[in-house]
Amino acid sequence: MKVAVLLAGCGVYDGSEIYETTITLLALDRAGVTYQCIAPDIDQAHVINHLTGEVDEGETRNVLKEAARLARGEVIELGQAKAEDYDALIVPGGFGVAKNLCDFAFKGAEMTIHPPVKDFIQAVHKAGKPVGLICISPTMTGLLFGDATCTIGSNTEVAAAIEQMGGRHQPCPVDDFVVDEENRLVTTPAYMEAGSIKEAAAGIEKLVDKILSMAG
Amino acid sequence: MKVAVLLAGCGVYDGSEIYETTITLLALDRAGVTYQCIAPDIDQAHVINHLTGEVDEGETRNVLKEAARLARGEVIELGQAKAEDYDALIVPGGFGVAKNLCDFAFKGAEMTIHPPVKDFIQAVHKAGKPVGLICISPTMTGLLFGDATCTIGSNTEVAAAIEQMGGRHQPCPVDDFVVDEENRLVTTPAYMEAGSIKEAAAGIEKLVDKILSMAG
Repeated sequence: MKVAVLLAGCGVYDGSEIYETTITLLALDRAGVTYQCIAPDIDQAHVINHLTGEVDEGETRNVLKEAARLARGEVIELGQAKAEDYDALIVPGGFGVAKNLCDFAFKGAEMTIHPPVKDFIQAVHKAGKPVGLICISPTMTGLLFGDATCTIGSNTEVAAAIEQMGGRHQPCPVDDFVVDEENRLVTTPAYMEAGSIKEAAAGIEKLVDKILSMAG
Repeated sequence: MKVAVLLAGCGVYDGSEIYETTITLLALDRAGVTYQCIAPDIDQAHVINHLTGEVDEGETRNVLKEAARLARGEVIELGQAKAEDYDALIVPGGFGVAKNLCDFAFKGAEMTIHPPVKDFIQAVHKAGKPVGLICISPTMTGLLFGDATCTIGSNTEVAAAIEQMGGRHQPCPVDDFVVDEENRLVTTPAYMEAGSIKEAAAGIEKLVDKILSMAG
């Protein structure tokens, strides 16, 4: 079994959430499953100084290069990834998902998804393979899958935006997940709710287990 | 109980190894232990494009800012850290340790340790608190602790350099650790040997357990 993991850079405020990604990869490896990290070759929306939370003006970083940092160099460009090569797809969270893969962080319910990202996720979905969306990633649910059920935890503003875009939101605690069996979609709040790394891990490990049982 | 985790940036080739750091923090949190990430406010030796492995000429990054990326913003500058505030210290690996915290990657056995790094680790050690060094970090053993026993796994060239600098090397498989009870030093090879993330996790989780039992 081989699972695709779609990345958005490296770092909670402008890329993929590092701990969510690492926990996902560790859970896959411990389950004896191979994974492939994938990222688009585009510039990040911006670079955040993670010490201050401010934008580092004048600095630019590339999503694929920074995803390579998170993947120890083992990443392929999104255009090279074929849905038929994978049994499932997982998208960890981090603001990079809402800034680089789509623009939810800037446009809310008026957002669009970067077309190659949308195409790839929909191709996996249309092939009947399960998709796992972690943390802020389920904001893409409506535009990707229409009337599918997902969770981002308990944030009512984000939940309302998801419903406005055609998705269906279900509240969920940090150590659990929501599954839409018909749409083969699994989601967990992770750092939308987590107060510490073990809380994020609890939900993500369950999501990975569920994805693998659906794929297997 | 509170454990200091000393970082060297963010990324295997020019900073702290991301997975080793994440696994360390998760193990500490799951043990119910508080941690504090710490890093020096210095420029990295260089920036590596993790997609190609080449130096990104003309780019500079700051160790503290990149450590903040790995620590979700929760990092303090090394100069603010007091040994008496912590019950133990762990230094994850990654080439940043051998490039930014010391210069083993450039000078081998002729290396020196960045003085504030050396001072802090020695202050923790002199207070009788256990120190855990992961992956490439045990190259600092001789200069920090003199004739103490450590492991970097099975790399004979690095092991020889450790012994040349006054340390004592003991081979060790990836899923185990070496402990020097007298010097209160615990080491594990992690990505010096690991073929996958679960292999690195096996040894690191044991190291964290051992450090906590020594500190407790």
